[in-house]
Amino acid sequence: MRKADYLFNQIYDYVVNRIELGEWREDEKLPSIRKLAVDFDVHRLTVLKAYQLLKQENRIYSKDKSGYYVQSGERENLENPIVSAYVQKNHLSEIHKVPVSYQFSQALIDPNLLPNRYISDYVKKVFDLYPKVLSTYSTVQGDEELRQSLSDYFNQHYQTITNPDQLLITAGSQQAIHLIAQAFVKARDTILLERPSYSSAIDVFRAQGANIVTVDIHPFGYDLEQIEFIMKEHKPRLFYLNPTFHNPTGYTVPAEQRKQLVQLAEQYRCLLIEDDAYYDIYFDQEPPPPMYTYDTSGMVIYIKSFCKYISPGLRIAFLMNSQPSVMKSLLSVKSLVDNGSPLLNQKIFLHYYSSSRLQQHVEKLRIALQIRKEIMEEELSATDWQWTSPNGGLNLWVRLPNQLSTDDLLAKSLEHSISFVPGQICDPLKEPSSWLRLSYSFANEEQISVGTRKFIDLVHSSL
Amino acid sequence: MRKADYLFNQIYDYVVNRIELGEWREDEKLPSIRKLAVDFDVHRLTVLKAYQLLKQENRIYSKDKSGYYVQSGERENLENPIVSAYVQKNHLSEIHKVPVSYQFSQALIDPNLLPNRYISDYVKKVFDLYPKVLSTYSTVQGDEELRQSLSDYFNQHYQTITNPDQLLITAGSQQAIHLIAQAFVKARDTILLERPSYSSAIDVFRAQGANIVTVDIHPFGYDLEQIEFIMKEHKPRLFYLNPTFHNPTGYTVPAEQRKQLVQLAEQYRCLLIEDDAYYDIYFDQEPPPPMYTYDTSGMVIYIKSFCKYISPGLRIAFLMNSQPSVMKSLLSVKSLVDNGSPLLNQKIFLHYYSSSRLQQHVEKLRIALQIRKEIMEEELSATDWQWTSPNGGLNLWVRLPNQLSTDDLLAKSLEHSISFVPGQICDPLKEPSSWLRLSYSFANEEQISVGTRKFIDLVHSSL
Repeated sequence: MRKADYLFNQIYDYVVNRIELGEWREDEKLPSIRKLAVDFDVHRLTVLKAYQLLKQENRIYSKDKSGYYVQSGERENLENPIVSAYVQKNHLSEIHKVPVSYQFSQALIDPNLLPNRYISDYVKKVFDLYPKVLSTYSTVQGDEELRQSLSDYFNQHYQTITNPDQLLITAGSQQAIHLIAQAFVKARDTILLERPSYSSAIDVFRAQGANIVTVDIHPFGYDLEQIEFIMKEHKPRLFYLNPTFHNPTGYTVPAEQRKQLVQLAEQYRCLLIEDDAYYDIYFDQEPPPPMYTYDTSGMVIYIKSFCKYISPGLRIAFLMNSQPSVMKSLLSVKSLVDNGSPLLNQKIFLHYYSSSRLQQHVEKLRIALQIRKEIMEEELSATDWQWTSPNGGLNLWVRLPNQLSTDDLLAKSLEHSISFVPGQICDPLKEPSSWLRLSYSFANEEQISVGTRKFIDLVHSSL
Repeated sequence: MRKADYLFNQIYDYVVNRIELGEWREDEKLPSIRKLAVDFDVHRLTVLKAYQLLKQENRIYSKDKSGYYVQSGERENLENPIVSAYVQKNHLSEIHKVPVSYQFSQALIDPNLLPNRYISDYVKKVFDLYPKVLSTYSTVQGDEELRQSLSDYFNQHYQTITNPDQLLITAGSQQAIHLIAQAFVKARDTILLERPSYSSAIDVFRAQGANIVTVDIHPFGYDLEQIEFIMKEHKPRLFYLNPTFHNPTGYTVPAEQRKQLVQLAEQYRCLLIEDDAYYDIYFDQEPPPPMYTYDTSGMVIYIKSFCKYISPGLRIAFLMNSQPSVMKSLLSVKSLVDNGSPLLNQKIFLHYYSSSRLQQHVEKLRIALQIRKEIMEEELSATDWQWTSPNGGLNLWVRLPNQLSTDDLLAKSLEHSISFVPGQICDPLKEPSSWLRLSYSFANEEQISVGTRKFIDLVHSSL
């Protein structure tokens, strides 16, 4: 960043902050341009530019020639990245708030497909085994027994040599992403995201003030030359990616590209944040091994949340990295953030996780989800919409006819009790598009069939 | 902050960051002063100054006249506030890591004094009542039933008119403090802390890059004129305080000062962050009502963790504020940070909390802790050390003879299997002092008696 940008941002941030915290109230007069220029030791033009942008954004107004004043009323449309660093709005959660009959927006698994009863049994076992579990804090890094069990699984399954010290237990993958952003990204650092990407991750990195560069993800993976160019030119701090049954597209990056990407990451010292939420939800064959398994120099931070398809309510995920300095930074942030995840939840998860029930559950779940996916695709086959049928995961990434505004469609759709995620929300650059995400994991078979048909009718009537 | 400071910090941060993330490795040559000056568009003197400070801190070294190089080896002693914003070291947790027989450093309650068995009963009840509790996410704000129950309690006990929308459930008070820092404090914002203060809170605000101003807390409370002067001169964003059985001192701010402080906060638009961890642990009479109860304009954010003395393992606390805009900001951060606390933990807590057992437990606990406090004081009465006997809380704040270094004493003490918290750790300014904190809540009566005597002998032999 150049100095001039910084000085501009400084003034802009200063004013926004005072208004948002109510220090400067509605219709209160702002300091004069001359005064702020002196206070901040900047050119008056810099202050003027900041005031002009604030005026454009309806945060302040000018009156005759008497000066600038704080605008009254709510200001909802804060798409400016600097501003969103403050308001930190989580768009997706707004959509989820609307109760609907045909829930295609939440990439969550239907609670009826989850092993509630078995886990309840394990809870009783946990209290017998650890009578003081509720009066004990976990360590910051997480329960040792659980970390051992997770690294054993990983080592057996992928022939890696991970040890429990390389794992950190987090409150869901959301917290894992947030810890990484806090530890390694500062305002104005450049980071690389897939386009489209997981919307909550976009929100976290934007809130951290990151400068976001994107690379497209295709059904065949990435354009690696483009990635190398970006790594060389922009030196991104990290690349957050979702290479297996990618959210929202469902695409899977092939093994050869995984290997090459890890090499690029080593060469350009760019951390790869591999968010592996859907690996086990495959419909025919197991996907290629995680990038983490190709990593020999600690450039991959691997995030996994089994809980999505076991027990979302426990909020247990973990991250993994082999560089002690990286783990040390993450532990420091975790200790500040919540000082360790609840021990009870970790022990409950451990006992279910290390039982044979897990494998049985996941096998049944794959079939149930594949059926739901096929029902949705069957209904959609009556249209000329485009999508690539995914081999796993929870979502279809569908392209509607070009002339539709997905914003208008969403509003109408919610009125008809159908929800979906407009592609724009998954776009780090937030450009309008005719793509949308339909999740087939939450609604039951009947709802998927009826809801998809209703949705198709709605779209056709909107054309 | 002046522009020159900013430019200096920018260069300094840039270099530290590259080294810490391994982009610039050991013994690698740094960019020349001339080059960095051009890249950042600053005067060469600014770069030189940053390099000089980095050299002083043993992060880089210079070789003849050929330039500057990255220093090798671990750099542990990073007391510089800019640096600690990166390493975010949590000092207290280092002390707690050492296993000792006489545990006087952790302000935690002896698990034997906690109602483990009863809570286990409630867990079974919770699974009967909410069979799908493990497959359901909580809302970001927290379980409605729990928030209702907590606000009912508050309204009945203090005649307030809080409603559930004014509460946010957090993963312990650590997370509450962190959310507040993330939502309202930016790097270089000024905040006000008590001196001494809760060390984890100090760490959070330092990590956020806050500029910290302090006000002393005395057995009679604060010097309010000093606070008014600070609010007027420094315009702190917030004042984090712990007015009831203050940690570490045990002092309680009188009712009249609470009222006046709320008025000052309103007048100078300074948020008061009232961390009320110890209110219910009183030994004779109930302390004055929280500052929150005097607040009519939403300037107080109240933090409460009942869990400390009920079930630390659940990690449930809450914060409370009546300004919708403040709650909105906090919710946005919470959704980015972990998207809501686990529902299971909230429901378990709710059912114990709304039972009559809670009151019985707390009454017994007060007596047990008072006895432990008196045993420790009885032993200490053989010395000429100074302390003000607290009317509640978990700690004694003790002044040793001046000539002792608490650092040396801590090392020696840990060797003798006794732990305590040196006053310096609780000092936002991190100055050496002869104060220390002895917690009487974790060790049992026998351990307190023997351990305190051993500790006294140790101190006397060190004089």
